[in-house]
Amino acid sequence: MIVALAGGVGAARFFEGLIRVVPQRRITVIGNVGDDIEFYGLHVSPDLDIVTYTLAGMVDPVRGWGFKGDTFYCQKMLQRYGYRTWFNIGDRDLATHLYRTEQMHRGKTLSVATASIVSRLGLDVTLLPSTDDLLQTYVLSGRSRMHFQEYMVRRQTKPKVKSVLFKGSARPAPHVIQSISEASGIIICPSNPIVSIGAILAVKGIRAALRQTKARILAISPIVGGKTVKGPADKLMKASGIEASAIGVAKYYKDFLDVLIIDKIDAQLAPQIRSLGIKPIVTQTLMKTMTDKVHLAQRAISEFRR
Amino acid sequence: MIVALAGGVGAARFFEGLIRVVPQRRITVIGNVGDDIEFYGLHVSPDLDIVTYTLAGMVDPVRGWGFKGDTFYCQKMLQRYGYRTWFNIGDRDLATHLYRTEQMHRGKTLSVATASIVSRLGLDVTLLPSTDDLLQTYVLSGRSRMHFQEYMVRRQTKPKVKSVLFKGSARPAPHVIQSISEASGIIICPSNPIVSIGAILAVKGIRAALRQTKARILAISPIVGGKTVKGPADKLMKASGIEASAIGVAKYYKDFLDVLIIDKIDAQLAPQIRSLGIKPIVTQTLMKTMTDKVHLAQRAISEFRR
Repeated sequence: MIVALAGGVGAARFFEGLIRVVPQRRITVIGNVGDDIEFYGLHVSPDLDIVTYTLAGMVDPVRGWGFKGDTFYCQKMLQRYGYRTWFNIGDRDLATHLYRTEQMHRGKTLSVATASIVSRLGLDVTLLPSTDDLLQTYVLSGRSRMHFQEYMVRRQTKPKVKSVLFKGSARPAPHVIQSISEASGIIICPSNPIVSIGAILAVKGIRAALRQTKARILAISPIVGGKTVKGPADKLMKASGIEASAIGVAKYYKDFLDVLIIDKIDAQLAPQIRSLGIKPIVTQTLMKTMTDKVHLAQRAISEFRR
Repeated sequence: MIVALAGGVGAARFFEGLIRVVPQRRITVIGNVGDDIEFYGLHVSPDLDIVTYTLAGMVDPVRGWGFKGDTFYCQKMLQRYGYRTWFNIGDRDLATHLYRTEQMHRGKTLSVATASIVSRLGLDVTLLPSTDDLLQTYVLSGRSRMHFQEYMVRRQTKPKVKSVLFKGSARPAPHVIQSISEASGIIICPSNPIVSIGAILAVKGIRAALRQTKARILAISPIVGGKTVKGPADKLMKASGIEASAIGVAKYYKDFLDVLIIDKIDAQLAPQIRSLGIKPIVTQTLMKTMTDKVHLAQRAISEFRR
């Protein structure tokens, strides 16, 4: 079983390649729920849904989230009822949140609701939320503390971040620790190390399980040429006192990482990564075409076949 | 203040005329909630919404319920999650149910949520749910008991009904009894006497308040020529042991009714209605055009101006 720790869009793009290289039933994704948020009484899990919709071939290819060709009629009407709808939820997307929320109101865990959604959308991967408990990513800016989605979506990452914190004391969801222990290979996706992977590592016992597993652990740097490919990873790394580079990524994961894939642009960083006890692999990490995605997945997987 | 007891489509059509004859701020509607039902964890109040959407000029004129030009993308996607979506809820309509449900989850009553919806849709009428408690209309057919919406919408009124029953012990919502006591005139809309008006009368104290009020009480018969204009009123009257005619309506409301408006087709029934101690008014009750609606409202209101 290949286990992957995943955020949203970066991870989902990588998975498009991975499912073409490894059968879905052999993939377990541990997904980030630190960005989960409630709107209109509904439980929204942005990262889990991005992964699911993308793998189902239903994601909007331009936005990277939500369903392809979705409409926003309900949201428009919600404005009439006084809601400030800064987080866009399409009409079809709403169905996912209605279903998840009703399942959870009936006593099902987020894990179980997620498994149903994955299966209903025709997928065969295992998608585990990192936790079924409440764990929320907050950003501190000046004196104000805001939910990550408020920083990311509503305020477009404009506020200057002092630090990132995870609210809640979360235990791993069922099968998370076991899947890490029993994996034949573990991939840390090219996701935001601080808020996506970081929120997974903030769940009790996950970081320890990564240190202890016998599986080889490989990460793909989301930082290319000192900049983030998408999202605020570079800003948030700096705010967390980490260098915004592949070296910063290597150091952040140093206690459990075996291999780091970095982009050709960063080839000169390879010796420094090696000196941290991590094997560097230099290849193209930008995923523009499906061929790029498949090549990157193949390169990653080849590390587990020795 | 004119107080009106109302079901769904028949009442809403009448109100389109009424608001052109009486200022909205002088109208209090006591609406039926016996048909309320939960879908996808959302509280749906079909009759209250039909009244609100119609008065706001936003109702779908063909269906008589839901928003004009609404789409059903969310519902289509809900099917993918395994829901049997026999009760159609449009994307815009969903916004109303999301808003109402979130308000109620936050501890607001249905009354308060309803008042907000009415106001957000730009109306100035007072719309009171008959009760804030749970009161549900069920239909007995053979050995099975089904929610009224299941009988009406899912099974298209096909099951043979043995009887109608109201589940729950409901107290009147705030201002309901007071509005009946202090009304300058009360109208029983041309709604289903058994399940729409009947479910309002099933709320403790409402029937007694109607008997006691000094206000003149006028009903408009929903039965014309022995048949219902819309819906299963005739079938359900028979199932409840009541003659499906304007006479049956008069007898059903006999303990509190002063005036009954019947259609020209039923003119020959006037003496029999008079013999019950109820003043019959013969006029056109079918409301095809706005002129029809205004004339009927004027005729009704004229009874309160003496």
